[in-house]
Amino acid sequence: MDTYCLKVQYEGTAYSGFQIQPDQPTIQGKLEEALAKLATERIRVVGAGRTDAGVHSEGQIVSFRSSGLTVPTAKLPYALNRLLPGDIRVVGSERRAKNFHAQRSALEKTYRYQIYQGPFPNVFWRRYALWERNDLNWPEMERCSRLLVGTLDFAAFAASGSSVKTTVRSMHQIELDWEGPLKTIRFTADGFLYKMVRNLVGTLLDVGRCKVGAKDIEALLASGDRRLGSATVAPQGLFLESVRYA
Amino acid sequence: MDTYCLKVQYEGTAYSGFQIQPDQPTIQGKLEEALAKLATERIRVVGAGRTDAGVHSEGQIVSFRSSGLTVPTAKLPYALNRLLPGDIRVVGSERRAKNFHAQRSALEKTYRYQIYQGPFPNVFWRRYALWERNDLNWPEMERCSRLLVGTLDFAAFAASGSSVKTTVRSMHQIELDWEGPLKTIRFTADGFLYKMVRNLVGTLLDVGRCKVGAKDIEALLASGDRRLGSATVAPQGLFLESVRYA
Repeated sequence: MDTYCLKVQYEGTAYSGFQIQPDQPTIQGKLEEALAKLATERIRVVGAGRTDAGVHSEGQIVSFRSSGLTVPTAKLPYALNRLLPGDIRVVGSERRAKNFHAQRSALEKTYRYQIYQGPFPNVFWRRYALWERNDLNWPEMERCSRLLVGTLDFAAFAASGSSVKTTVRSMHQIELDWEGPLKTIRFTADGFLYKMVRNLVGTLLDVGRCKVGAKDIEALLASGDRRLGSATVAPQGLFLESVRYA
Repeated sequence: MDTYCLKVQYEGTAYSGFQIQPDQPTIQGKLEEALAKLATERIRVVGAGRTDAGVHSEGQIVSFRSSGLTVPTAKLPYALNRLLPGDIRVVGSERRAKNFHAQRSALEKTYRYQIYQGPFPNVFWRRYALWERNDLNWPEMERCSRLLVGTLDFAAFAASGSSVKTTVRSMHQIELDWEGPLKTIRFTADGFLYKMVRNLVGTLLDVGRCKVGAKDIEALLASGDRRLGSATVAPQGLFLESVRYA
């Protein structure tokens, strides 16, 4: 069995998320269907990030094992793209060490959230950004974002009902860029809890709207209680930007 | 009768173009349907540019006359956007002089064509740019673009079969921007013939591919013969960017 990895870009609009689900269009499902045509056995793929319905990827990394691919590694993107729908593109392929695992081997992932600010929604960003009509206090959002950097218990930002061993994660960086009408918030961490980025963005937007302050964020982190947090923002602004491995 | 104008943005992907056609989704059709709900009479709108199927607008200007709008001018965008599909947004409204006509009063229009250059098609630009896999000679394209600026007979760049009084137009500026993977060519003229921008882009791309040179462009202009020109490029890269009035 050889281990392979693929870099995959997709627009999530038409999909029920990355993870395979019966009778639903999913990224994993489309990739496995396409790979089945290039291999002699059934192939299961693993994604670095399990993106939700409507979430996009610029740099999802997917790994899988196979003993019988009918196509050389370097040709995989071309062969797969002929079989995949236009909103999913494989843009890179590599052989990796046997024990490589797209999710477990990842050292760091970066997600970006996009916000379009203007008096009217923008037709070209409607699938790729959250529309915010009112001005936001970006310098204050940036100040408060620093409270969310470090090795912290992010329980208050995990979707309620998710079961994980620990809700502690190391947030390495949060970068805000608010020049022009398209604003971005970029999160880099060793891992993310379910809906964590969209919950963090909800809280930072409430900071920008002067509804939440630094003390509220400190209290929220200490509480570990998702019910005290801000609303989860819409998925269409979220992009899995890149994944870093050793 | 009062004369109004609207600034309209739209993604052309789902439409058979601006101009109304029976049993086809068109921008004009959607605007007139929405306006019918805000007026006491049937309203016909005129667009500054008759964009084709799949062509987008960031700054289309539309004018119409009405004696009985039920909404104040400043509220028109909000009222219309509630009635329009999400891929059409009215982003401005004004009262104008009685004889204002979005198409005939226009002094200058600017169209932009977008080209995405990379080894694989980009899922996020697939509706908004032409994908070009190979490198293009952009400095040579820019040199040749200067031959197309001025008051010239653009007959060789007009779709065959179009009937207009004159095929002479004044091209005020052609700007090429080729930094990064998304390249743009921007055309500003006093008017454009049918499919002229997409035919000009086809010729400039052939310059970038070293298939066409300056002498060929001079000969093409002199011939006035569309059949000697390059292929018309796909509509999804084309944006009506802005319209200038006195």
